[in-house]
Amino acid sequence: MDRKFFLVAVAGGRGSRMGADIPKQFLPLKGRAVLERTIARFAEAFPGLSVVTVLPKEHISTWDAYCSSRGFTVRQSIVPGGITRFHSVRAALSKVPDGAIVAIHDGVRPLVSVSLLHRMAERMETERALIPVVPVTDTLKILDPSEGGGLVTAPDPDPLRSRFFAAQTPQMFLSEEIKAAYEGPFDPSFTDDASVARKNNIPLSYIEGERYNIKITTPEDLVLAEAVLNHLIPE
Amino acid sequence: MDRKFFLVAVAGGRGSRMGADIPKQFLPLKGRAVLERTIARFAEAFPGLSVVTVLPKEHISTWDAYCSSRGFTVRQSIVPGGITRFHSVRAALSKVPDGAIVAIHDGVRPLVSVSLLHRMAERMETERALIPVVPVTDTLKILDPSEGGGLVTAPDPDPLRSRFFAAQTPQMFLSEEIKAAYEGPFDPSFTDDASVARKNNIPLSYIEGERYNIKITTPEDLVLAEAVLNHLIPE
Repeated sequence: MDRKFFLVAVAGGRGSRMGADIPKQFLPLKGRAVLERTIARFAEAFPGLSVVTVLPKEHISTWDAYCSSRGFTVRQSIVPGGITRFHSVRAALSKVPDGAIVAIHDGVRPLVSVSLLHRMAERMETERALIPVVPVTDTLKILDPSEGGGLVTAPDPDPLRSRFFAAQTPQMFLSEEIKAAYEGPFDPSFTDDASVARKNNIPLSYIEGERYNIKITTPEDLVLAEAVLNHLIPE
Repeated sequence: MDRKFFLVAVAGGRGSRMGADIPKQFLPLKGRAVLERTIARFAEAFPGLSVVTVLPKEHISTWDAYCSSRGFTVRQSIVPGGITRFHSVRAALSKVPDGAIVAIHDGVRPLVSVSLLHRMAERMETERALIPVVPVTDTLKILDPSEGGGLVTAPDPDPLRSRFFAAQTPQMFLSEEIKAAYEGPFDPSFTDDASVARKNNIPLSYIEGERYNIKITTPEDLVLAEAVLNHLIPE
């Protein structure tokens, strides 16, 4: 691959869902902060990696101090988060040069495997955007306020021919293309980077994600992540 | 609770997605078949439980032999699976008397906790239908053949007010009500028992499910389940 590799690690969350004082990206997972594990996984896959980390403004100095104290020496720029994920990613992309491959990844998905990262990078030699997806095996419901706060079964436009998939991260792009897409206006229907890319007519390709590449959003997820680290992925 | 408790364990799958010769409900999970673990979890929560197990016709004798060899002595009727999950559940419900609480559960969800089962049974003293749900944290995509086999972001009818949830099992009902609902005609939009109940105007209530109450459908899920058993849930 001739293009340099960049990681945008999105960790703008303030962690209120965890019920902890510490935002979830800083919580310890087997002795290392979740965010440190996430970035370290990429650094293992791509030596020489450059990282742009998005954090809430008030937590930047904490993270700086943590990295120093750990001797965590990855090449890293830190940018303050914006008012939505879209604005955070746009700010981070301004630190990424054109002509690179950029992986945009949730800072709280520390379990992505080196193997998936390598397979994705290899596909990016010929693709313009690559999204990991896993089939949804549970029935989906939508919270519908018009139903008195009840849930209704999610409509499946054609039950015989279509299926739901869950999109994970990292989502990989050619940096100049995703930067151009993020220069367009914000739309509240943007749920991930793929939806921004799609709006800008970047052709999307897909790859099978990993069931255990979970986003850590609850205390239960943190315990599950520890179980996965102990059993599935050699450190 | 005055009502007797029944479990309908739905294990009609032939397991082609696992890439194994053995259907997934019979695969070993820490030394015990997945289906045995599933039923045993309910038997632990509800001593005196009655079970109706749905299996593919050609696997009934295997399961009989397995239960005998293991000395697995739960009170169990076995019914052959129908052409869809709906028909399988309808057949199983014909073995459940009126006036009971019935939990309809995927035979390949062995990790549901005794604690959740107890909390659900307690709520069923006043509810008519109870469905465990967890919020979906990944972005959802729909496979759309009109897009050349591509995936499109799932439409969210009102991004500010609605959210996707994944419905798990067990789903609990008053037996006479869910039996009546299953006597109606089959509709391909039925994705779970809640959708059948809803069609028959049974009021649905919801409870927070468990992130690790996963449905075992791939070899990766089986490894994840083993990790969960080793770490989260004491045996």
